[in-house]
Amino acid sequence: MPYTIGLDYGTNSVRCLIVDVTNGDELGTAVYEYETGEAGIILDPADHNLARQNPADYLKGVEVAVKAAITEAKDAVKGFESNQIIGIGIDTTGSTPIPVDKNGTPLNMLDEFKDNPNAHAWLWKDHTGHAEAAEITVLAEKEHPEYLAKCGGTYSSEWFFSKILHCLRTDPKVFDAAYTWAEHADWLPAVLTGTQTPDRLKRCRCAAGHKAMFNDDWGGYPEEKFLSKLDPKLGKLRKTLSDRTYAVDQTAGQLTDKWAAKLDLPSSIPVAMGAFDAHLGAVGSGIAPGTLVKIIGTSTCDMLVWHGLPAREITAKMAVPHLADIPGICGIVDGSILPDYFGLEAGQSAVGDIFNWFVNYIQPGGPEAGSHEALTKKAAKLRPGQSGLLALDWNNGNRTVLVDQRLTGLLLGQTLHTRPEEIYRALIEATAFGALTIINRFEEYGVKVSQVINCGGIAEKNPLLMQIYADATGREMKISRSAQSCALGACIAGSVVAGKASGGHDSFADAQAAMCGIKDVTYKPIAENAEVYQQLYALYKQLHDAFGIQDFSGKLANVMKELLNIKDKSA
Amino acid sequence: MPYTIGLDYGTNSVRCLIVDVTNGDELGTAVYEYETGEAGIILDPADHNLARQNPADYLKGVEVAVKAAITEAKDAVKGFESNQIIGIGIDTTGSTPIPVDKNGTPLNMLDEFKDNPNAHAWLWKDHTGHAEAAEITVLAEKEHPEYLAKCGGTYSSEWFFSKILHCLRTDPKVFDAAYTWAEHADWLPAVLTGTQTPDRLKRCRCAAGHKAMFNDDWGGYPEEKFLSKLDPKLGKLRKTLSDRTYAVDQTAGQLTDKWAAKLDLPSSIPVAMGAFDAHLGAVGSGIAPGTLVKIIGTSTCDMLVWHGLPAREITAKMAVPHLADIPGICGIVDGSILPDYFGLEAGQSAVGDIFNWFVNYIQPGGPEAGSHEALTKKAAKLRPGQSGLLALDWNNGNRTVLVDQRLTGLLLGQTLHTRPEEIYRALIEATAFGALTIINRFEEYGVKVSQVINCGGIAEKNPLLMQIYADATGREMKISRSAQSCALGACIAGSVVAGKASGGHDSFADAQAAMCGIKDVTYKPIAENAEVYQQLYALYKQLHDAFGIQDFSGKLANVMKELLNIKDKSA
Repeated sequence: MPYTIGLDYGTNSVRCLIVDVTNGDELGTAVYEYETGEAGIILDPADHNLARQNPADYLKGVEVAVKAAITEAKDAVKGFESNQIIGIGIDTTGSTPIPVDKNGTPLNMLDEFKDNPNAHAWLWKDHTGHAEAAEITVLAEKEHPEYLAKCGGTYSSEWFFSKILHCLRTDPKVFDAAYTWAEHADWLPAVLTGTQTPDRLKRCRCAAGHKAMFNDDWGGYPEEKFLSKLDPKLGKLRKTLSDRTYAVDQTAGQLTDKWAAKLDLPSSIPVAMGAFDAHLGAVGSGIAPGTLVKIIGTSTCDMLVWHGLPAREITAKMAVPHLADIPGICGIVDGSILPDYFGLEAGQSAVGDIFNWFVNYIQPGGPEAGSHEALTKKAAKLRPGQSGLLALDWNNGNRTVLVDQRLTGLLLGQTLHTRPEEIYRALIEATAFGALTIINRFEEYGVKVSQVINCGGIAEKNPLLMQIYADATGREMKISRSAQSCALGACIAGSVVAGKASGGHDSFADAQAAMCGIKDVTYKPIAENAEVYQQLYALYKQLHDAFGIQDFSGKLANVMKELLNIKDKSA
Repeated sequence: MPYTIGLDYGTNSVRCLIVDVTNGDELGTAVYEYETGEAGIILDPADHNLARQNPADYLKGVEVAVKAAITEAKDAVKGFESNQIIGIGIDTTGSTPIPVDKNGTPLNMLDEFKDNPNAHAWLWKDHTGHAEAAEITVLAEKEHPEYLAKCGGTYSSEWFFSKILHCLRTDPKVFDAAYTWAEHADWLPAVLTGTQTPDRLKRCRCAAGHKAMFNDDWGGYPEEKFLSKLDPKLGKLRKTLSDRTYAVDQTAGQLTDKWAAKLDLPSSIPVAMGAFDAHLGAVGSGIAPGTLVKIIGTSTCDMLVWHGLPAREITAKMAVPHLADIPGICGIVDGSILPDYFGLEAGQSAVGDIFNWFVNYIQPGGPEAGSHEALTKKAAKLRPGQSGLLALDWNNGNRTVLVDQRLTGLLLGQTLHTRPEEIYRALIEATAFGALTIINRFEEYGVKVSQVINCGGIAEKNPLLMQIYADATGREMKISRSAQSCALGACIAGSVVAGKASGGHDSFADAQAAMCGIKDVTYKPIAENAEVYQQLYALYKQLHDAFGIQDFSGKLANVMKELLNIKDKSA
């Protein structure tokens, strides 16, 4: 039987999963927790924006996790041998760029820089480059608004060029020593296949398109002239960024003999191009045209694919369907999720985080009475609309469709009798309405959502939330069968680059048909609940537009902003 | 030295206070807790709207409390004798009507009705007549909108005719047995002076004007024809309601020999007309033109007096200042607080109740961490605007200036880091902004507020709240010197009906000058805080108008209402 390996690099650990490509059965899995820093992250007590990782942990993780997963698979399935593994797929966090030298070696692996955090991997949630992000946004708005149009109108401090420019400004020694910068998702597959030298390094479509303003419409990465205006040295770096990027159906290369020996795997098996965890999570959950995959955790990532022509190939006279820019959708990238499809990425800035806030910070009634379990139990007994409460899910801003971090939460309808579980339920409902707003936005622009598949811890563990989502959206909520959707997506990529001839699959559609599934339990809308939620959603939308849209006639869009200005001034 | 007695009938007990009329010194005080029912209130577990009292408790209370207060005064002041008492004043809750027979005897004191709650006093907070209140409002809107214009546009279930009509509808035997109905504030002074028979009973201006649509502009109480449309029997009752009512500078009569003997007081001393507790509380706090008195407790009562001509004496050509109807002010009654002045009454439906809700129902962090003390301590360390939060103080509706019980609370600006003490402070600030809205409304209509004097438990015990009120309103907050402002107001009324010739005073102004004062500690606005609160108030007002005013361009006035409709339907 043919098997593939998926490596899923998360924020604190890497998981290895071994899957049967004929049916998706999960034979073995193992997790390696990164060793450096706190829970795998290098922090700076004096600067809460800083978050770095040690690329050496990534490499050690491959060895430890792959070996352990193979051992588990051997125990689980009689006759399993590691030489039956036909391909490898990899997903990582991102944007997590690493400064590398001419050999493709991360600078922190050189003696000179080994203790310098700037020479390490700049983890996705590092926000040290917030000033540089603002600078890039301002320049792009002025000179190349199209660069921002595909990523929601604002360049983030979490992204590639913000981090590199910040390094250039604050630690030029590291910047000068770096030949180029590679995303974690590019670098790891390159190392395993011996292609990590900058001249051979293949860069993945997903990271480039979503985080580095790469688009074939303007010839790839932003032009040198633009980058030079930020800093001439950044302009020079442009030459080290290739003009071509690759989707996950392409190989980074073949596993080197050295790594094959180290991992007890067949040498020369193909390693797929890397991608971000959410995107391969969508693949592992069965994403396809019309299928919205929602990864629900502290925040959400909502993904769709659309089969259309890239903008540059469309003329006004063509009668084929084509993809408009969808206002507020934060990423529209050709091939970023599945090859041959546009990947569309939306998200809610906080979902689980809002419930965590209520439980950890407000803690109504104390630790026991105010636990998730206790509140959920009581909230489940309430009927929709019964509390008279309505909330906006903006405690961490609004990523989609308003793309505005300076929005804040709202709770309305309290009386002298309002109970904590009513607020808890109102917060869940608010996130459900936020989810519906995203679905509606896609559909308003012609991207049909005919199925919703959820994955992530909250989707698996909270039936109340899933039922409310079904009732509020009027759609059946399905749950991805695998609890490891991201690693499974990586296994699927491994099976596609292996190909049918090697026992794998020739297309993602074939691989997903064989390897993905949904759980037996799904959540269907209950008509009477859905009817109430339709009424509540109309009110939610009224608040959403009044507080969220600058030129809305309600003229309340200033309120949250002015409060934040007052707050900032009082600091 | 001359002294007076003040009797202050509260919801659960009656207090007797003995005061030196030359300087306001409080010699003796005693409280009698009513015996009947729970904490003095007859309740019905099957009907939470029902709240009645036993008038016999009122009588026993006079005896017990007066005697105890005299004993205390004798102990406190050498040479004090009860024959030095020159007058009595009385305040009560209201509207608290009592069905009485031809002798002025409450029906529950007759054997036939002794166990019938409907034959007792209908306490102010009895809401059994809510349907009848709606019926009265509808009819008045149609036929006599002027009846409602002076009481905020809606006739309340707490008021005189709602209760009587409900009795008529649900217990006609009691209604038929009643010759008439007397307010507690009318009946008690009448009993002490032997004038309780309906032909001699004097009715007080305060209860009649604020709760029974009495106004000289239309000849007193509502016309018989109007009441007959509600029910012919109610129309007949109109004949038992006199056409004249009396302010607190008038006597109900002289203390009878029987009561003088019982209480060990000089016989024939004058007893002032009764009034509601809040109104005599305003008198005891030093109310005068330009002085706003705020009684701050679970809710607030905000009172002003205005010296102008009654509307019927004003013609368009007159150049004298006159009092307009002030939209949203819930009571404008000639002579209701001080004789010769219009009494203006406004209020916030919930103040202390909102903080109690947060502490008792939400209880952030549990009983200890979420106590008033703990939250106040932490909230006091915050700077204005620092939390980014803004709230509306509508958890129990809005009495002034929106006069709308179907408004609900709102909290805005929450992030993932918002702490309970920030919410607690935002709730205090919301009530401060509500207070400012009332002040502004008075001033917009020409009633100048040049001084604010506060009384009530919260004003005395919460310096943080008082400082926030000073900062938010930009005005100095003073506190009434006496902790018993209502009883002191009754003593003042007693001194005025006694008159200067008997050692009392000839006017309320003289009496207040001698007997009232403010505490040494006052709260002055801190300029930098006031500046931030001005900005926050502009945002508060924006939310207030958008959510509270039907025809406001913001068009959000439907939101709270529709939520309540959905809630009602889900019940």
